[in-house]
Amino acid sequence: MRLARVLTDTGPRIAVMTEAGTRATLLEATRLADLFKDDGWKHTATSAPSNGEVITDPVLLNLADETTRIFCVGHNYRRHIQEMGRPLPEHPTVFFKMSTATIGPTDDILLPASSAAMDWEVELAVVVADDLHDAPEDRCRQAIAGYTLINDVTARDWQHRTSQWFTGKNFERTTPLGPVIVTPDELPQDHTGHVDIEISCEVNGITRQRARTGDLVFPVPSLLGYLSRSVGLRPGDIVATGTPAGVGAAMNPPTFLQPGDTVRTDAAGIGACVNHCRRRPGGTS
Amino acid sequence: MRLARVLTDTGPRIAVMTEAGTRATLLEATRLADLFKDDGWKHTATSAPSNGEVITDPVLLNLADETTRIFCVGHNYRRHIQEMGRPLPEHPTVFFKMSTATIGPTDDILLPASSAAMDWEVELAVVVADDLHDAPEDRCRQAIAGYTLINDVTARDWQHRTSQWFTGKNFERTTPLGPVIVTPDELPQDHTGHVDIEISCEVNGITRQRARTGDLVFPVPSLLGYLSRSVGLRPGDIVATGTPAGVGAAMNPPTFLQPGDTVRTDAAGIGACVNHCRRRPGGTS
Repeated sequence: MRLARVLTDTGPRIAVMTEAGTRATLLEATRLADLFKDDGWKHTATSAPSNGEVITDPVLLNLADETTRIFCVGHNYRRHIQEMGRPLPEHPTVFFKMSTATIGPTDDILLPASSAAMDWEVELAVVVADDLHDAPEDRCRQAIAGYTLINDVTARDWQHRTSQWFTGKNFERTTPLGPVIVTPDELPQDHTGHVDIEISCEVNGITRQRARTGDLVFPVPSLLGYLSRSVGLRPGDIVATGTPAGVGAAMNPPTFLQPGDTVRTDAAGIGACVNHCRRRPGGTS
Repeated sequence: MRLARVLTDTGPRIAVMTEAGTRATLLEATRLADLFKDDGWKHTATSAPSNGEVITDPVLLNLADETTRIFCVGHNYRRHIQEMGRPLPEHPTVFFKMSTATIGPTDDILLPASSAAMDWEVELAVVVADDLHDAPEDRCRQAIAGYTLINDVTARDWQHRTSQWFTGKNFERTTPLGPVIVTPDELPQDHTGHVDIEISCEVNGITRQRARTGDLVFPVPSLLGYLSRSVGLRPGDIVATGTPAGVGAAMNPPTFLQPGDTVRTDAAGIGACVNHCRRRPGGTS
């Protein structure tokens, strides 16, 4: 099943999408957390097509709303860590992304005047359907609603001004999220049961990142277990699983996003976000 | 003026409090962001007593709701930094606190089973009334709705597992916030126009932290300016301004919160949060 958040005359609605993305069957929920409050959400969603409202060629919105929490993880691709000569981490490095930083799958990325180093970071993201507190990994695996794609666009100059990355990760309207959430049954898994798909990032048609999610140091159930033992997870939470090699900061010379650039992030079996970059209008208030 | 979020039969409401805290005049808004969406909120709030509903001896709730964003700052008390032999920072160190980590001014602090090092951190917090994007400091100063108190209770063991503090700062129901918001005109300022009040923290009746907010390296308008140039500020946002010397981790031997402890944080002219500590019940879901 493929879920999206689509534009309707009365505001955003969660919808079940056809594989081609041309038909959206609307559900009651206007935001992810509300959908997952219904324990029988999978049944509700799969039975909707028989009696629901349908929109043709829907506009896909940002999956996140103002209550969505997004946990992000750094240093999680084994090959990337090893090529940098660093030891594999003992614990996931977790930071927070506010929903105000996110945009929809085709929205423009706004480049702020105060940063000269906006960089791309394609990542697999997982959407949580249940409350998870001190939950074992098996329970965490069952609580996965599905997978989507995030481009954790980062102001490198602000990220490294102090020890804490938060500021550089949270400029408004910089982080594409979407286009849809695909349930785990529709994605391939490796021999350990972890989702194993290719993700990639192209800037102006040139591939900059390409990796398989099977290379994660902390696979998804392990990340969810770590978060469940600490901050706790709630229905509608999104966890971004880290980015592989190929970011602009590691190029020689370092290369960052410019107004007019087009960034395309892809996840096999999920879809793509295609976002143009433009300067953020100056602040007035 | 003193604002609070109080319990009513129909849920939380923002209210104007008498100085003694015994009478609350209810406003329409159920959350801070909604109050400040009204540009004339000060007039609305001050004119309410003539025609509003009044509650006697109200229960004060958590000021934060599920949409509240809380920006926190580390390393901001000059004397504390200097006594640690560190240079004064060039930029504020900013991290994020989710509203799910916060509790009301008399709620219990829940000590999680997974941390053995829960520590206190009294801080002055500022509440933002307006949108601030690339705003000069004078504009930021005008956008201050008022001041409150936060106890940024921190799991030191989780805080320092990786470079990013987020996880250790965001255990659920650990961070007292309140009791009320006091508008700037009711608090003393130093000769530079910065709010200058004493804040303190007592654990089981023994004073552990005591400092004046005039000692901040980055005073409030400077912090708001920094955030306005980066992540942007919105009505209802809360900014915690950092903690002074005297945390449990710096004691010899290090001393942390235990079940049964009582933590009292005070800010002169604002009020106190008094919170008992108890073990968080084990997770089941």
